[in-house]
Amino acid sequence: MSSSSESSAKRSGRRPGPTTTREAIAAAARRQFAELGYDRATLRGIAGEAGVDAALVVQFYGAKDALFREVMALPPTVADAMAALAEGPKATVGRRLAEVIVGMLEDPRSRSIVLGRIRSASSHPDAADLVRETVTRDIGRLAAAVTDDEPDLRAVLVGSQIVGLALARYIVRVEPLASLPAADVIDYIAPTFQHYLVETLRPPS
Amino acid sequence: MSSSSESSAKRSGRRPGPTTTREAIAAAARRQFAELGYDRATLRGIAGEAGVDAALVVQFYGAKDALFREVMALPPTVADAMAALAEGPKATVGRRLAEVIVGMLEDPRSRSIVLGRIRSASSHPDAADLVRETVTRDIGRLAAAVTDDEPDLRAVLVGSQIVGLALARYIVRVEPLASLPAADVIDYIAPTFQHYLVETLRPPS
Repeated sequence: MSSSSESSAKRSGRRPGPTTTREAIAAAARRQFAELGYDRATLRGIAGEAGVDAALVVQFYGAKDALFREVMALPPTVADAMAALAEGPKATVGRRLAEVIVGMLEDPRSRSIVLGRIRSASSHPDAADLVRETVTRDIGRLAAAVTDDEPDLRAVLVGSQIVGLALARYIVRVEPLASLPAADVIDYIAPTFQHYLVETLRPPS
Repeated sequence: MSSSSESSAKRSGRRPGPTTTREAIAAAARRQFAELGYDRATLRGIAGEAGVDAALVVQFYGAKDALFREVMALPPTVADAMAALAEGPKATVGRRLAEVIVGMLEDPRSRSIVLGRIRSASSHPDAADLVRETVTRDIGRLAAAVTDDEPDLRAVLVGSQIVGLALARYIVRVEPLASLPAADVIDYIAPTFQHYLVETLRPPS
């Protein structure tokens, strides 16, 4: 494994510094958690993909659960984009949220974080916590900024459509959704987000 | 394990017949696939829960993948209920579908089938196939009966909300959705199904 680290250092012409190595481990971990889920991903496999020794992974991040929690945090850009949504007009909040969510799912780095959390949520309590936290905190904050009519419930309805979209498009890959251009996905999902965030929740009886 | 089989036969006062044993294995398998997902469920664990020897599971059902495929078929009552939806008025199809779906998720037997498929879909191609098949065939048939405007896309949008609901309410258990009475869940989900099945899909530009 150290030989693969050396050869990549040779390719780039310099020895990788600790920051590069740390980020290489994080990227490998995100990819393996996203692909395999928490249970099947191993420190050994992650170390192998990053071209380092498993002991170095532990030295940088600690045990597998600590590694998971650290590398599966959403990048601050996503949290910032979510927070900014509350500022804009209510009439377009569903569409603007759809743009942020689809953008997050189309970017390989944040996509692997979201898919890794969803894939791991069934078996790993930390992953389930992260999914709950994102829904409750980030989407909950947006819902509360938009309405005082059941914001928590609205946030989890939005969250349910987000995880369902991620699962259907990127994990189970059901067609035609899996091959749709991102702009079309935004168009189709936006009215649902708008409904859950702003409109009357119960159908007229 | 055979001792546990004998003791349960003793408890019920008679030796369980092959049909009972077969159904006990199927129930144990469904529960373990739903709880653990395909990878972590084992023939040994399933046999243990059913109070039989693992060899008997193999004799009845074959290998783990064959067992999965057989016990994870949706009960015919669900397929019948789905098929009947196409007969009713279009104006209420979203609500009637929500009743069938929430009913399916509230019944422990069909719930364990749906959750087992979703939990297993990330790692087991057969499970992903079953999710895709249900969306494409059962919901696709309903969508095609309701409209000829992109029925396949409508079916997968509906499917994405169903898997998202199952994940958020029953696997990740996000509140307040997790504790909501079934009737309320039907109320909140029905407009989304109605939109995806019947209404104009893209927002006016």
